[in-house]
Amino acid sequence: MSRFCATIEYDGTAFHGFQRQREGQRTVQGEIERALSQIGGRSVAVLGAGRTDGGVHATGQVIAFDMAWPHGEEKLRLAVNSQLAGDVAVLQLRGCADAFHPRYDAKRRAYVYLVEECPDRVFRPLNRWRHWQIRSCLDVAKMNEAAGFLVGEHDFGTFGRPPHGNNSVRQVFVAEWHRKEVGVLAFEVAANAFLYRMVRSLVGSLKLVGDGSWTVAEFVTAFDACERQLSGASAPAHGLYLTSVMY
Amino acid sequence: MSRFCATIEYDGTAFHGFQRQREGQRTVQGEIERALSQIGGRSVAVLGAGRTDGGVHATGQVIAFDMAWPHGEEKLRLAVNSQLAGDVAVLQLRGCADAFHPRYDAKRRAYVYLVEECPDRVFRPLNRWRHWQIRSCLDVAKMNEAAGFLVGEHDFGTFGRPPHGNNSVRQVFVAEWHRKEVGVLAFEVAANAFLYRMVRSLVGSLKLVGDGSWTVAEFVTAFDACERQLSGASAPAHGLYLTSVMY
Repeated sequence: MSRFCATIEYDGTAFHGFQRQREGQRTVQGEIERALSQIGGRSVAVLGAGRTDGGVHATGQVIAFDMAWPHGEEKLRLAVNSQLAGDVAVLQLRGCADAFHPRYDAKRRAYVYLVEECPDRVFRPLNRWRHWQIRSCLDVAKMNEAAGFLVGEHDFGTFGRPPHGNNSVRQVFVAEWHRKEVGVLAFEVAANAFLYRMVRSLVGSLKLVGDGSWTVAEFVTAFDACERQLSGASAPAHGLYLTSVMY
Repeated sequence: MSRFCATIEYDGTAFHGFQRQREGQRTVQGEIERALSQIGGRSVAVLGAGRTDGGVHATGQVIAFDMAWPHGEEKLRLAVNSQLAGDVAVLQLRGCADAFHPRYDAKRRAYVYLVEECPDRVFRPLNRWRHWQIRSCLDVAKMNEAAGFLVGEHDFGTFGRPPHGNNSVRQVFVAEWHRKEVGVLAFEVAANAFLYRMVRSLVGSLKLVGDGSWTVAEFVTAFDACERQLSGASAPAHGLYLTSVMY
């Protein structure tokens, strides 16, 4: 048995999230475990770096698993992909240390959230499961002013709950908006780890700053209070992409 | 009754093409007719500029229809969109002359075809219904050298059959490849009108030039012969976008 780690991409639209669920719920972890078990001839368990929600996409999720496979890494990658439906694929795969754990060993996770401004209520079908399409135009400078307060080590209790225990302190390395193309804004955020729903909650709150519903000072007041109910409504899942995990 | 014309966008993935089919086949025309009939309280027939195949997308298809609607253009646009599933939408809508016909009056149609180079067999799930993902890298200069021969009035019989009659002469205004982003190539083509499957057949043939299977001279020989069976295999539907129709 050797441990392998892999970078995977998925279109989250048709998945009930990353994490294996009870029978009948199609998940990314479940699909990859099914593929690996088919190839290996015995049950294989997959570990993941982050538990993305249903509808959330990934271009750089990291997984690990143990398997007896003497035929080389690239052949394993192609074998797995040949067993998967088109909405999830292994982009890279290599052998790694037996002790490697994609979640516990991760030092930095990065996400991108895409927002599309549709002020005339022209919601474009080709982007409907890729962008959060909103009716307002957003003030990027104001959103970046607010986002600047997120960088550093803080208690992010307003923007999410910890998956385990009650420590909601996280270290944010990057939190920045930029225009990706005409009408499309990207929020890039990286941290040592995230709380449950934290990126969507941040985007929902920063959007209120961007459309003028909140001042930057109101955003900071909500942030400082560390009270979950003071967050703006979470942005929808389908605008969110897990882009990389670093070790 | 007044005639309206509209620009529509659709994600072709879940449609059996634009044109209304027999019961049970979901089509763009069928869905819009259903929506308009529901709003107008009587059967409404929709005319379209081009009959895209199943899987082909559009960002600028043009349609027209007759309807009694006294509440203004924008209210009609929103009413139609409220009756449509998310994969098709009316982007713009306005009143037009009773004699306007989106197909017969069109002077110029433009398409874009997107090809993604995946030389390491890394096929990315998020693009699977948006790009033709191929295993080779393409020589853009060579493809443009070949594409240059397409511009002008020619018999395109090698690359498609006429939808009616047997005149396969068309006038191509633009036929050009460029790099859209890293690893993604776009073929832009505009003509007065296209033969059935012409863009996909052109892309399939130019790809053979790009990957070295054909020389430019071999492409020109096939083009000049005006024989359908000399075309390269058609590129798949899901890389193709109808982007605009001009009058």
